[in-house]
Amino acid sequence: MHIEVITTGTELLLGTTQNTHAAWFGQELFRLGLRVARLTTVPDGDAIEQALDEAIRRSDVVIVTGGLGPTSDDLTREATAKVLGLELIEDEAAMRSLEVFFATRKKVMAETNRKQAQAPVGADVLPNGNGTAPGVYVPPRLNKVRACAVFLLPGPPRELYPMYWDEVEPRLRALAGVSADRGMTEMKFTGVGESDFHQAIDGALAAITGLEYGYCARISEVDLRLIGALEAREMGRTVAMSAFSTHLISDDGTSLEAAVVRLLQRNNFTLALAESCTGGLISSRVTDVPGSSEVFTHGFVTYANRAKVKMLGVSEAALAEHGAVSEAVAREMAEGSLRVADTDLAAAVTGIAGPSGGTEEKPVGTAWLALARKGHPTLVEKAFHLRDRNGFKKAVSQAVLDMIRRSLQD
Amino acid sequence: MHIEVITTGTELLLGTTQNTHAAWFGQELFRLGLRVARLTTVPDGDAIEQALDEAIRRSDVVIVTGGLGPTSDDLTREATAKVLGLELIEDEAAMRSLEVFFATRKKVMAETNRKQAQAPVGADVLPNGNGTAPGVYVPPRLNKVRACAVFLLPGPPRELYPMYWDEVEPRLRALAGVSADRGMTEMKFTGVGESDFHQAIDGALAAITGLEYGYCARISEVDLRLIGALEAREMGRTVAMSAFSTHLISDDGTSLEAAVVRLLQRNNFTLALAESCTGGLISSRVTDVPGSSEVFTHGFVTYANRAKVKMLGVSEAALAEHGAVSEAVAREMAEGSLRVADTDLAAAVTGIAGPSGGTEEKPVGTAWLALARKGHPTLVEKAFHLRDRNGFKKAVSQAVLDMIRRSLQD
Repeated sequence: MHIEVITTGTELLLGTTQNTHAAWFGQELFRLGLRVARLTTVPDGDAIEQALDEAIRRSDVVIVTGGLGPTSDDLTREATAKVLGLELIEDEAAMRSLEVFFATRKKVMAETNRKQAQAPVGADVLPNGNGTAPGVYVPPRLNKVRACAVFLLPGPPRELYPMYWDEVEPRLRALAGVSADRGMTEMKFTGVGESDFHQAIDGALAAITGLEYGYCARISEVDLRLIGALEAREMGRTVAMSAFSTHLISDDGTSLEAAVVRLLQRNNFTLALAESCTGGLISSRVTDVPGSSEVFTHGFVTYANRAKVKMLGVSEAALAEHGAVSEAVAREMAEGSLRVADTDLAAAVTGIAGPSGGTEEKPVGTAWLALARKGHPTLVEKAFHLRDRNGFKKAVSQAVLDMIRRSLQD
Repeated sequence: MHIEVITTGTELLLGTTQNTHAAWFGQELFRLGLRVARLTTVPDGDAIEQALDEAIRRSDVVIVTGGLGPTSDDLTREATAKVLGLELIEDEAAMRSLEVFFATRKKVMAETNRKQAQAPVGADVLPNGNGTAPGVYVPPRLNKVRACAVFLLPGPPRELYPMYWDEVEPRLRALAGVSADRGMTEMKFTGVGESDFHQAIDGALAAITGLEYGYCARISEVDLRLIGALEAREMGRTVAMSAFSTHLISDDGTSLEAAVVRLLQRNNFTLALAESCTGGLISSRVTDVPGSSEVFTHGFVTYANRAKVKMLGVSEAALAEHGAVSEAVAREMAEGSLRVADTDLAAAVTGIAGPSGGTEEKPVGTAWLALARKGHPTLVEKAFHLRDRNGFKKAVSQAVLDMIRRSLQD
């Protein structure tokens, strides 16, 4: 099935807004075993008409986002009716929804909003629970140019996503004959690279009937997506777990920081963090998770040596003898953090983010990680991530969170 | 001048990689007063040929990214030669560069890399200092279909960006007749909204001859871009400063965190940060700036009340009487932080990020900010940002950094 996406919006071409629709549609369609064959971005206004006309001649399905607003630049409805040779009429139900939308917000509806209730004769109007612009679905049988289905959807993600899930996905499944139980399982792994997966399990995954799979490599994380019927996905899951179970972050799309917060909550444990080279990033990632305040209590960003001494009681001797980036200092940071914060767990990291500050013995990219736990010996690990400053911080924060995760899964 | 961009890459349509080229080209061309009329994304392989053929018939300039690698999927060179009716030949200089690239890395060049040295007869080969794929420029006079210039550029940003600046921009300037002194000034502001600019200075900016301008609104930040000859830009700058000088972060694109680090360095001041609701984000932003270790020494992420007491000496009385989110506690956090860290400045913030935890008196979105400075009275400010958890953290971190910035500019 040939599917094309047209995103409209001058701001997407001026560079003031990132076009995230491309990746989002790719992921959503991939989940159904479908692909975007081409994505076209045009400015607001007349350009939509030509792009739509071309896309319809090539496609079985065309999805258009944006241009459904009330202003004179919003011409997607008009262009679609013209290209398909259909008349635009006011939809009664859509008009009522618009009136309700303004009434509940105690606002007066402008006359220009009326045109948002228009749709080509015979088309389905797709309700919008999060904005004024209803969507439109023109089924293939109405299309006189070619038997191509056309969806017109609003641009803003908070309006687009729910409408896609509620109204578009079921119709796409029907059009493409995607079976109802076909779905996606997303498994997140850390501490292994994509090439490890290729080597270890690509053959076994490819041999599973009815399974499609793909990888997405991020910084210190590989996401494996399994698509197909539940049984095929379960077989894929078993294959992946047989090779990489110790590296699994989650199999429901949960991020590493959320998985760590969940494990802490389940164990009724509290956590403190002592960060040098990551500069607060690990604390910030943990506190991105709603509910983290139940388990995360203290974060120490000990960027200067004297902060390590004063806040965590790191010994001057260890700093002088081994340097700030060392096994000894990482250990003292974690243990000092556990003592000061009086938590169940405390993780610490010290390293050299660069661009400067490296030596031959301790090059830029070196980091020492430590994890102290009440009643257990302190664990220490060395890591090396040669990346730019932000990439280094991200990779090291990933390694520290994973160290906590592993210790809680034992 | 009608310019189209074609980005190739299956990963862009599968959703595993965000297509950031769209916004990047938009910004770069805007700097020259040019616009992208259409952006098309196609998968690797044959699809490039049709897309290129269509784009050339509409355009004065077509820029293609990706598909210049050594594999059988990399067909941009071949497709371009075919569409333009030109023969591909091996370029001697490009071949030599490839050999040098592999020799300096002590790697053997694969036979498949040879095709990367090919270019249409008469085209310019654009050197690539950061990878194996040279770019290609086909000037309008070689194009038999239409007098349209065609650029073929590598996909990875670290190869694409330098090649664009060195090889493409000068040619675009010449093609479009953009005067040599035309440039862009980017002014960043915080603490004012885009609508304030529209109201206060749009009229005055529009009246300046030879000036183009545009805004980019981010969370708690507005970027104003002035494009034109130096004199016009200076006039625009004066207009903007007359209204919003106290809100200016920088006029050279410098981020707020980098501006703060620069001001601290200039004053030879050290900084400590005490964060509750931002959870380490402010520390992380400051430590994103190379050289921040000279000025930033201590970060206290006091997420739990007992952390505020233990790490910063916040009084139990203030917590009991006013609650953790209060003017009194923000003040005690900043002053405690200054005392413990013994720095010149200490900023603190406490607030309610949500989604839960709000009350009628202190709704989700409330934050108290404080700034303590040796020998000065402590400043306290209240802020309110009703956003999702990440948006709240970003907006509040922006407000705290700006409070530091303002205190150093007095």
